[in-house]
Amino acid sequence: MGSSVDIADVTASVTSVLAVPDDKPAFQPLDPEDVRAYLHKAVDFVSDYYANVESMPVLPDVKPGYLQGELMSSPPTYSTPFDVTMKELGASVVPGMTHWASPNFFAFFPATNSAAAIAGDLIASALNTVGFTWQAAPAATEMEVLALDWLAQLLRLPATFMNRTSTGSRGTGGGIILGTTSEAMLVTLVAARDAALRRSGSIGVSGLPRLAVYAADQTHSTFFKACRLAGFDPANIRSIPTTAENHYELDPAKLFESMQADVDAGLVPTYVCATVGTTSSNAVDPVGVVAEVAALFGAWVHVDAAYAGSACICPEFRHHLNGVERVDSISVSPHKWLLTCLDCTCLYVRDARRLSDSMETNPEYLKNDATDSGEVTDLKDMQVGVGRRFRGLKLWMVMRTYGTAKLQEHIRSDIAMAKMFEGLVRADHRFEIVVPRNFAMVCFRIKASGAMTEEHADEANRVLMKNLNKTGKAYIAHTVVGHRIVLRFAVGSSLQEERHVRSAWELIKSTTNKMMME
Amino acid sequence: MGSSVDIADVTASVTSVLAVPDDKPAFQPLDPEDVRAYLHKAVDFVSDYYANVESMPVLPDVKPGYLQGELMSSPPTYSTPFDVTMKELGASVVPGMTHWASPNFFAFFPATNSAAAIAGDLIASALNTVGFTWQAAPAATEMEVLALDWLAQLLRLPATFMNRTSTGSRGTGGGIILGTTSEAMLVTLVAARDAALRRSGSIGVSGLPRLAVYAADQTHSTFFKACRLAGFDPANIRSIPTTAENHYELDPAKLFESMQADVDAGLVPTYVCATVGTTSSNAVDPVGVVAEVAALFGAWVHVDAAYAGSACICPEFRHHLNGVERVDSISVSPHKWLLTCLDCTCLYVRDARRLSDSMETNPEYLKNDATDSGEVTDLKDMQVGVGRRFRGLKLWMVMRTYGTAKLQEHIRSDIAMAKMFEGLVRADHRFEIVVPRNFAMVCFRIKASGAMTEEHADEANRVLMKNLNKTGKAYIAHTVVGHRIVLRFAVGSSLQEERHVRSAWELIKSTTNKMMME
Repeated sequence: MGSSVDIADVTASVTSVLAVPDDKPAFQPLDPEDVRAYLHKAVDFVSDYYANVESMPVLPDVKPGYLQGELMSSPPTYSTPFDVTMKELGASVVPGMTHWASPNFFAFFPATNSAAAIAGDLIASALNTVGFTWQAAPAATEMEVLALDWLAQLLRLPATFMNRTSTGSRGTGGGIILGTTSEAMLVTLVAARDAALRRSGSIGVSGLPRLAVYAADQTHSTFFKACRLAGFDPANIRSIPTTAENHYELDPAKLFESMQADVDAGLVPTYVCATVGTTSSNAVDPVGVVAEVAALFGAWVHVDAAYAGSACICPEFRHHLNGVERVDSISVSPHKWLLTCLDCTCLYVRDARRLSDSMETNPEYLKNDATDSGEVTDLKDMQVGVGRRFRGLKLWMVMRTYGTAKLQEHIRSDIAMAKMFEGLVRADHRFEIVVPRNFAMVCFRIKASGAMTEEHADEANRVLMKNLNKTGKAYIAHTVVGHRIVLRFAVGSSLQEERHVRSAWELIKSTTNKMMME
Repeated sequence: MGSSVDIADVTASVTSVLAVPDDKPAFQPLDPEDVRAYLHKAVDFVSDYYANVESMPVLPDVKPGYLQGELMSSPPTYSTPFDVTMKELGASVVPGMTHWASPNFFAFFPATNSAAAIAGDLIASALNTVGFTWQAAPAATEMEVLALDWLAQLLRLPATFMNRTSTGSRGTGGGIILGTTSEAMLVTLVAARDAALRRSGSIGVSGLPRLAVYAADQTHSTFFKACRLAGFDPANIRSIPTTAENHYELDPAKLFESMQADVDAGLVPTYVCATVGTTSSNAVDPVGVVAEVAALFGAWVHVDAAYAGSACICPEFRHHLNGVERVDSISVSPHKWLLTCLDCTCLYVRDARRLSDSMETNPEYLKNDATDSGEVTDLKDMQVGVGRRFRGLKLWMVMRTYGTAKLQEHIRSDIAMAKMFEGLVRADHRFEIVVPRNFAMVCFRIKASGAMTEEHADEANRVLMKNLNKTGKAYIAHTVVGHRIVLRFAVGSSLQEERHVRSAWELIKSTTNKMMME
């Protein structure tokens, strides 16, 4: 049967050796030498994967339910050599992956990553600490707080957002690492909601139908969902229209009008979400002016800088956060653009008490001296859940290992590649750049000209994207901006080099050529 | 300077080699050979840690803010050899850990783990796929669905909870892996809330102040918090009293009374949470009867089986889930007791549409043919956020590698050790077992007798716990049951063997002896 392994044979032979004497501990799931052997195999798998992912189709050609047909439909009764598990992983799972790690991935926003981050995440999985309270995980809690304060310094956030003051004592601000931006929105929405209910003298949640929230229509859909999760009335969730003239940014004058109209109608403006780097087109809402308008109404202001926040570690892009000293909270996701694998969303709040006022729990089984002292942060009081991974470790390991200069180089290199791509598009008269490029994402489209109407162009762009993605040699996504189909070219996947961007552009041109000849 | 490395020297020498020619890609955060080198080092760190963790103090002796004093207070400008990062990790982070992986850890519930799970999580961190839609991650989505269906089979859940029918087509039920039980509660609470609002003809959320939710007073505090997050009125969140006579289980008669009284008062019973294995004392609410009562009022029933659900993979414990075929949803956390590192909470719902009705979003940039076909599950529509880790992989790798028989052996071995501990406690007249032991956790206390009142006994138990934990040789937690301080001895940390349980008991006895002589 050659060198390949027949799974049935292996299973049979394993089954036959399963009988072990009763006096021996039969099953040691964390036996240090098993851990060493399994993990070294996993590491080689990962390293080989990175060496080869470039040649794999970025978007796989598999049908819904395909995996059901390849793997066992029920869990096996007996144990299997780890090599068999790894073999099935390579044979059945990898070919069905959309390869976010591929250098030919240009869709959505890149999920950037690094050797240091993966090492940190691996160690976190192994330590497997559950950091709900400081006492349950002092080092994990302190590391999270430290990593957040380091990042706050990289971003030059005001000291009021930091966990520790420069003298080392506990500050009034604070941060927490959450899984997603949506969670950051949800916990701040709940805190703002409860504060507004208290302020307006609501009995219980009776005042909830009067609270209103605001964001530009370009804000991520997850914001509008988070508002519904928190119980805001769908009728009071305002999506402020943006315009091409205004580069799809939130217009403070329209925001004011909307908030004032609500007050006039007896509603209570409660929360405004501003975005730095929208998903559709990387628009940047004017944070400072938005905060000034919101302050007139006593509303909470949150800044969603999930993607573009990371760019603000470079002095030349920091101006996008101007005015952040006036907002109540800001979230940035290093799992998007700061080389830290999922999941890692950093939420900063100016007054940590405003979160814990809504989210603190104090059951008997979690009471302890450290909490009673008031000297520590119990991170469970700033999030939805109780349990939590040791996420601070990977973020710290990224900053500690690479240092600020390399992280800035990484951002600048991505932006330079995007700029180059933008230049290539501009030089081809068949295409247009749809909105000004702010960061490492280019919004472009085949443009309407001659007999080709805007509707025809929409269809041509759809077909171009479909044909391009079908090649497996590049993967891009689309959006709609100003009622037009727009192609999003997001640079920055961590294995990406200039040559990949150039190849993708050649592929876009040749695919377009073919379409136009048909 | 011997074999140790001076960090300042290393930093200086690194700085001097930082200048690289402009034409060379200077920074490759995912260079496959760097990945290989960093991760092999991390693996050896982890494996050595497991070999040595037994001798480390379980609970560290560190002060709030200690880490700030040991590590740099700002991120470094220049990069550092990875060995330096690892050295700081070993020198400053590890000594401040509460070692959940220690075999001397008996607090809370164990965070069980295994070589296969860590390997799966490592590979997930490296693939770094973001599985919001099926198209964005076909293999990750299908693997999650498959792993959930495998676990459903191990738990003998009704087929209505499964993602795929036996013929391979898409079922009406469904599951998703979330980070915590709290998230599972939150998303089901929101779905139940919205359904109740629609049913009761509420305009927007105007009917919200009339909705009521129910759980026993032993239910985890995070349930009551999740209700508040979802906007339920604090005045309508019912905590049904339990009694020692009833082993602290939810009393269906009292539940009925409470729900009926609310209906009589014009409220709308919306959601009941039953627990299989409460945190305080491992009580098991009678799932089937609770579901029957809730059905009379049309309320959603969720079962929180975070810890004890895993035991139900053994036929002899499966009866604790009797009646689950009548509930709307159930969550089980393999990160607690099924050897799968954080985070991994499996939520099953009987009708997946009831989640997506509340949580679906469909922004233009995520639209795709697979979603339009209706043939696939887009997991973002069953959770709070959009992004998500590839959590299904580690769960599948655990089941695939170890097989059902070994997983059952793991559960039985923990329960046997707990039973042994229970026997040791019972044989010592100074102690009492406070509630019947259902799983691998023993609730015991120094008992009041002679001149020692119950209040004195409470204090004695507090001091025993404090003195015991101070030794660093064991870590146990407490709770309050029936107004009395009770010590919780939770068996099952994955490196634990019988000898650790025996040593802990010897330590409890000797610590008690010392106290009583003082």
